[in-house]
Amino acid sequence: MIQKLLIANRGEIAVRIIRACREMGIATVAVYSEADQDSLHTQLADEAVCIGPAPSKDSYLNMERILSAALVTGADAVHPGFGFLSENARFAEVCEKCNLTFVGPSSEVIRALGNKQVARNTMVSAGIPVIPGTDHPILDEKEGAKEADRIGYPVIIKAALGGGGKGMRTAWTREEFSQAFLTAKKEAESAFGDGTMYIEHFVEHPRHIEFQILADSQGHVIHLGERDCSIQRNHQKMIEESPSAAISPRLRKVMGKAAVGAAKAAGYVNAGTIEFLLEGNGKFYFMEMNTRIQVEHPVTEFVTGLDLVKEQLRIASGLPLSVTQKEVQLSGHAIECRINAENPKKGFRPSPGKISEVHFPGGNGVRVDTGIYSGYQVPPYYDSMVAKLIVHGKDRAEAIAKMRSALGETILDGIDTNIDYQYEILSDPDYQAGNFDIEFLNTHRIGGISNGL
Amino acid sequence: MIQKLLIANRGEIAVRIIRACREMGIATVAVYSEADQDSLHTQLADEAVCIGPAPSKDSYLNMERILSAALVTGADAVHPGFGFLSENARFAEVCEKCNLTFVGPSSEVIRALGNKQVARNTMVSAGIPVIPGTDHPILDEKEGAKEADRIGYPVIIKAALGGGGKGMRTAWTREEFSQAFLTAKKEAESAFGDGTMYIEHFVEHPRHIEFQILADSQGHVIHLGERDCSIQRNHQKMIEESPSAAISPRLRKVMGKAAVGAAKAAGYVNAGTIEFLLEGNGKFYFMEMNTRIQVEHPVTEFVTGLDLVKEQLRIASGLPLSVTQKEVQLSGHAIECRINAENPKKGFRPSPGKISEVHFPGGNGVRVDTGIYSGYQVPPYYDSMVAKLIVHGKDRAEAIAKMRSALGETILDGIDTNIDYQYEILSDPDYQAGNFDIEFLNTHRIGGISNGL
Repeated sequence: MIQKLLIANRGEIAVRIIRACREMGIATVAVYSEADQDSLHTQLADEAVCIGPAPSKDSYLNMERILSAALVTGADAVHPGFGFLSENARFAEVCEKCNLTFVGPSSEVIRALGNKQVARNTMVSAGIPVIPGTDHPILDEKEGAKEADRIGYPVIIKAALGGGGKGMRTAWTREEFSQAFLTAKKEAESAFGDGTMYIEHFVEHPRHIEFQILADSQGHVIHLGERDCSIQRNHQKMIEESPSAAISPRLRKVMGKAAVGAAKAAGYVNAGTIEFLLEGNGKFYFMEMNTRIQVEHPVTEFVTGLDLVKEQLRIASGLPLSVTQKEVQLSGHAIECRINAENPKKGFRPSPGKISEVHFPGGNGVRVDTGIYSGYQVPPYYDSMVAKLIVHGKDRAEAIAKMRSALGETILDGIDTNIDYQYEILSDPDYQAGNFDIEFLNTHRIGGISNGL
Repeated sequence: MIQKLLIANRGEIAVRIIRACREMGIATVAVYSEADQDSLHTQLADEAVCIGPAPSKDSYLNMERILSAALVTGADAVHPGFGFLSENARFAEVCEKCNLTFVGPSSEVIRALGNKQVARNTMVSAGIPVIPGTDHPILDEKEGAKEADRIGYPVIIKAALGGGGKGMRTAWTREEFSQAFLTAKKEAESAFGDGTMYIEHFVEHPRHIEFQILADSQGHVIHLGERDCSIQRNHQKMIEESPSAAISPRLRKVMGKAAVGAAKAAGYVNAGTIEFLLEGNGKFYFMEMNTRIQVEHPVTEFVTGLDLVKEQLRIASGLPLSVTQKEVQLSGHAIECRINAENPKKGFRPSPGKISEVHFPGGNGVRVDTGIYSGYQVPPYYDSMVAKLIVHGKDRAEAIAKMRSALGETILDGIDTNIDYQYEILSDPDYQAGNFDIEFLNTHRIGGISNGL
C-alpha cells in the first residue's frame, strides 16, 4: 500500500486527495507555489514543499521540482489531480523511472489516448462508435466531396494543424461543400502554412455524456454510470449531473458496455472517463478518454456511494476494486455547480482578490468541496474555480430544488462569482425539464446575460 | 399540503427545517428572541417575527406570542423542532384549537407518552419489554424487599417525587436492601416531604439504543433502524451513530418490531423515537418515547437516504410515508458529534461569546448542520450546542477515520469548544472497538479530563 503520497496539484482537488489520505492513514506531501503559501492544501497536508514562483510553468508544471520534492520527503507515490501534469505522459514516465507510483494509468496508455488518431483507431478496432470521418489527410476538394458523401451531411471540415476555429467550416449539404472546403483550406494555408484537411460528420446539438470507469491491475473493469456535462460555456463545463435526463436504463447499459470496452481496448488501469457525444436520436460517438480524476467526480460518488479517490489509491497500490459491476447501484440524483471567481456580467472576466467572508450551505444532501476560507486571497494565476457545490436528492426535481436553496445560502464576499448565474440556469424551464444540449448557453440568454462568446 | 410553516425553535434545527421547506416550496416564518436577531434562522426564513426577550420563558416557551406570530403571518402549520415546546401537550392542543397543523403527534398522544406510568402501562399491554419494577407506590420496607425479590437484583430505589439523584439508592443484594431503602426513604422525606418510593431493576452497563419510527395518518408504521447514543455526559448525548456495533441483524429485527409495536400501541402519528436500554446479554427494555424530531436524526438520514423533516411535513399534511418497510435499506455507517460551546478542561462550563472565525470541513460523506457563522455571537441563554458534524462511511472504521479528519479540520475561534474532547473519544481504543456503554465517560478519562461530574 502507498505510504506517503505527494499531491502534484493545488486548490480543492488537492484538499480532496489529502482528505482521502487522512482517512486511509496515508501520509501526505503538498507542493505549493509562492502564491499558494497560505492555501488550504498547504496547511492541511502533513508536509508541504514550496516548488517555485506563481506561474504554473515554474511550479505546478515543473516536473523536476515536483520530483525533487517527492524524493526529498520520501514520498513513494504521486497523485496528479486534474489539469497541470495529470495527462502528461512524460511526467508519468519520469515518475515510473524514479520508482514513484503514479496514481493513474501507465505512461504508454496516457500517450496512446492523448493522440486523437491513435485513440480513434483503438476505439474503431474495439467496435466503439466514433464520429464518422476521414482516416487520412485530404488535400483535394473532389476527394473531400466523395468522403463527405460517404460520411453523411452535415460535415465539419477542419485544418489538420487548426485551432481556435481557424480553417474550420461546416457544410450542411453537398451544394455547400466545395465553397466551404476551399474557404477553409485557404484560411488554413494562410494561418498555418498548410492546407491539409480532415472531414468529420457534424453532430448536431449533442449532449456531452461521459461514463466513469474504474479498472484495476487485475483485469476488472467496471463503469459507474454516466454524467451529463452538457451545460458548458466556451467548452468549459459549468454544471454536471448524474444520472442524465436523456439516458434510459437500456441506453445506459449499451453505453456503459461501450465505455468498459473502450477502457479494456486501451489496456486502461485506474479511474478514467470516456466522453461521448449523444445525439437526440440515441446515437452516440466516442469523443475522447480522460486519463485522470475529473472535476465532476463527486456527482458519481453521491449516486454510487463510492469514494473515487480512495479507489484510485487502492488501484495504484495493486489492490482490486472494492466493488463488482453488479454491486454498483445508482441511487437518487446528484448535481454539481462549479463556483468560479468571475463576473458573468462583464464577459465572465476572472475576479481574483481577497474573499472577506465565506459562508457555505450545509445540511442533508449538500456537499462542499473547496480550498478557500474567510480571508483567503484568490490568486490571479490559476483556474477561476474556487469551490464545487454538490447536492443529492431522491430525484432530479429534488436535487434542483436543493441546489437552488444551497446556492441561495452561499456567501462569498469580496470577489465576483457566478453564483447568481448558476442560480438562473437552475431556474430555467428548459434546464428544469431536462431539455438541453451543449448549445444551451448559446441558445439561452440566462439572467439576461449573453454567454460572452 | 402545508403552505406556510412557523418554526417554533432556533439554531441549527430551525435552519434544518427552513431548508426542507425551501426545497418543498413551503413558505417559512421564523420566530426569534431579542438575543437571536442576527441568527442564521432569522435571516434564512421568508419572514421573521420577534417574540420577546432572551430568556426562553419570555420567547421560545411563550405559547401566546408564538401563536400570535403564526396568526399574524398567516402560517397554517407549526413545527416545534426539539426542546422548548416540542413535547408540550398543551402547546400541541392550542395549535389544534387554532386550526394550526402541529407537526408532530396529537396532543393526547404527547400527553399519554409524557406520563411515565401511562407510557409504561401502554407498553406492557402491547407486550413491549419494560424494566421490571413496582406498579404501585411502596411505603413499607418489608413490602419493598418482597418486590425487590420479585424484580431481581440489583434494584434501584427511587423517590416518587425524586429528581437530581436525591432519594435514590442502588441495592445489589438482598442484604443491602433494608439499609438502602430506609436511607433513600429518609432522604426523600427530608428533601420532598414525602417517603413514597418505587423500585426498579437496575440495568447494569446498558447501551442507549433508540429506534427511529415513522407513522402516517393512514396507519403505516415503519422503523428506520437504530441509533446508538451511549456516549453521554451527565445524561446528555455527545456522539450518536447508526447502526450500533452491538446490534445484530436479528436483534434489529426484534427491537424494530417492538418499536413499531410501541408506536402502534400508542396510536402514534409522525416521526418518533423509542428509547431502549440494552443489556450486554441482548435483553432490552423500553425506556421512553420521544414525540419529536431528535438532535441525532441526521445519522439515520445518512444510512437510509431519507429526509426525516420532509417526512414529518408530508405526514402532517396527511400524505402517506414515501417508503415502505421493505424499501428501507441501511447502507454504511454514520456518526454524529455534537459541537458544544463549552470548556471540557473547566468542568465543561459553557463558553458563550463571539466566534471570530468559523471553518467547517467538507468533502465526501461530510455533513454540517449549524446555525453559526464567522462573527456570530453565541448567546448565553440557550443550549451550548452550536453545530453538528455528521459523517458517513462504508463501515464503522471508515466513519471513525472520517470524523477524526473532519474534527481536525474544524476551526471555531473565539470560544471554547469540545472539539478536541470529541477527537479524543473518537481516538479511544474502546470506542474504536465498539466496546462501550452509557458509563463510558465515567469509566474512561478521555484526554486526561474527568467527565466533570
